[in-house]
Amino acid sequence: MLGLSVMRRLLISGGMKGLRLQQLLSEETLRHLQTSPHNTRHISTVSLWPFSSQPRDFSQPNSSWSPEMHKVYDHYNALCDTDIENGEEKRGSWRKLPSYNRSIKYATGGIHLSKLIQAKARLFTRNIKEQGATFEYVVFVNKEEKRCVCVFQAGCLLEGAPGHVHGGAIATMIDTVTGTLAGFLSGPVMTASLNIDYRSPMPLGSVVLIHSSLDRIERRKTHITCKVTSTDESKLYTEATALFVSISVGHLFGSRN
Amino acid sequence: MLGLSVMRRLLISGGMKGLRLQQLLSEETLRHLQTSPHNTRHISTVSLWPFSSQPRDFSQPNSSWSPEMHKVYDHYNALCDTDIENGEEKRGSWRKLPSYNRSIKYATGGIHLSKLIQAKARLFTRNIKEQGATFEYVVFVNKEEKRCVCVFQAGCLLEGAPGHVHGGAIATMIDTVTGTLAGFLSGPVMTASLNIDYRSPMPLGSVVLIHSSLDRIERRKTHITCKVTSTDESKLYTEATALFVSISVGHLFGSRN
Repeated sequence: MLGLSVMRRLLISGGMKGLRLQQLLSEETLRHLQTSPHNTRHISTVSLWPFSSQPRDFSQPNSSWSPEMHKVYDHYNALCDTDIENGEEKRGSWRKLPSYNRSIKYATGGIHLSKLIQAKARLFTRNIKEQGATFEYVVFVNKEEKRCVCVFQAGCLLEGAPGHVHGGAIATMIDTVTGTLAGFLSGPVMTASLNIDYRSPMPLGSVVLIHSSLDRIERRKTHITCKVTSTDESKLYTEATALFVSISVGHLFGSRN
Repeated sequence: MLGLSVMRRLLISGGMKGLRLQQLLSEETLRHLQTSPHNTRHISTVSLWPFSSQPRDFSQPNSSWSPEMHKVYDHYNALCDTDIENGEEKRGSWRKLPSYNRSIKYATGGIHLSKLIQAKARLFTRNIKEQGATFEYVVFVNKEEKRCVCVFQAGCLLEGAPGHVHGGAIATMIDTVTGTLAGFLSGPVMTASLNIDYRSPMPLGSVVLIHSSLDRIERRKTHITCKVTSTDESKLYTEATALFVSISVGHLFGSRN
């Protein structure tokens, strides 16, 4: 419904309305920000992660990845490299996005959620520790072309029909990837609608590409199109359109501001 | 994409085309069927479960259920009771459906799937052992009224936006429930499309009702409508329509029959 990366961007972009930064950060992080000698740099890069321990970045390669997954990852990762041309540093137009499994601990100021839920909550797509069992994916975004590509390997615990990926698991990845792009382009957004056409069943273990592109932005509405294909793009598994509306974080917690 | 219950119904109804029963059952089950003194009864009731051990029915109440979940479950469960009227047994029009986490082990005859995937695959909505962590749900179906109601409690590991259920998790339940109804009414089907409108964010821990009704059947197409509401039905979380197409099981594995 609203990607974690979007919420993270909220913090980084400072694009929140209706909630103060302090309400969104843990006490540890606030202390760290207040005492750090490089506050400005930290605010835009590292320290906004609201937990005291370093988070695991789930977008890093691991031993569950198939050769096909590695190959496609390497391809897009190479597009993110910085080159030196005529003595000048030239950065590629692609960026790899990190991926964590925890949300913002104090997003509600502890008012609306029980402490138990706050402590136990994990991002749906990253909620299992066993590598390769469910969603293995990495999102690469191209801001100039207003599109992103996700490399996705579907694990055995995503079964719907025998031997095939559940339609809900595919919908989950489509929501995640289109929401990431919408958030990247429009700031904090929320899924308003998903329209998904399943063209071909996807076997468990498949590695696929999820291509998302901006269709158009109309005031608060961001329209995204999406295709799920084989890695050589010869086979179409799923097509979708998604609509996201821009929100203030306060909206999530009942504020009308 | 295609609910497990649909595949189970496939076996029970004998509505398969393009695949022989033997291809869908494990050797243990086949042996059991061949040696049992009550073959006919077994075929229509118990023994078609293709594993040697007794499966766990995930639709049974457990300690993770909130009082609200218990209350709604008890309400619909009571509608499934058999009453005695004028000395005649009268069965209610509601049925509770059981829910397992394994698919049909040898659906592909071991050709298309590796043994590792066959052994490890689990239904997406029942893939975590910890009770209450993800999807707790029970589906009640009313064949006469061509509709079903699912009681769903959303666990902490389904997070999308902070403190709220991931849009993909809601889509997963909508696919599951509408697919169950379509399969119940039309036999083996596969999701062709899902159109989902998210009306209001759903907090983690919520207990909601997922109401699915038959819209219409046109030849191979079964159209289902769906609403996700609070248990008192005063709040609308999500609306959806879903289209399912009737298939032969062989279709899943590349047969054109």
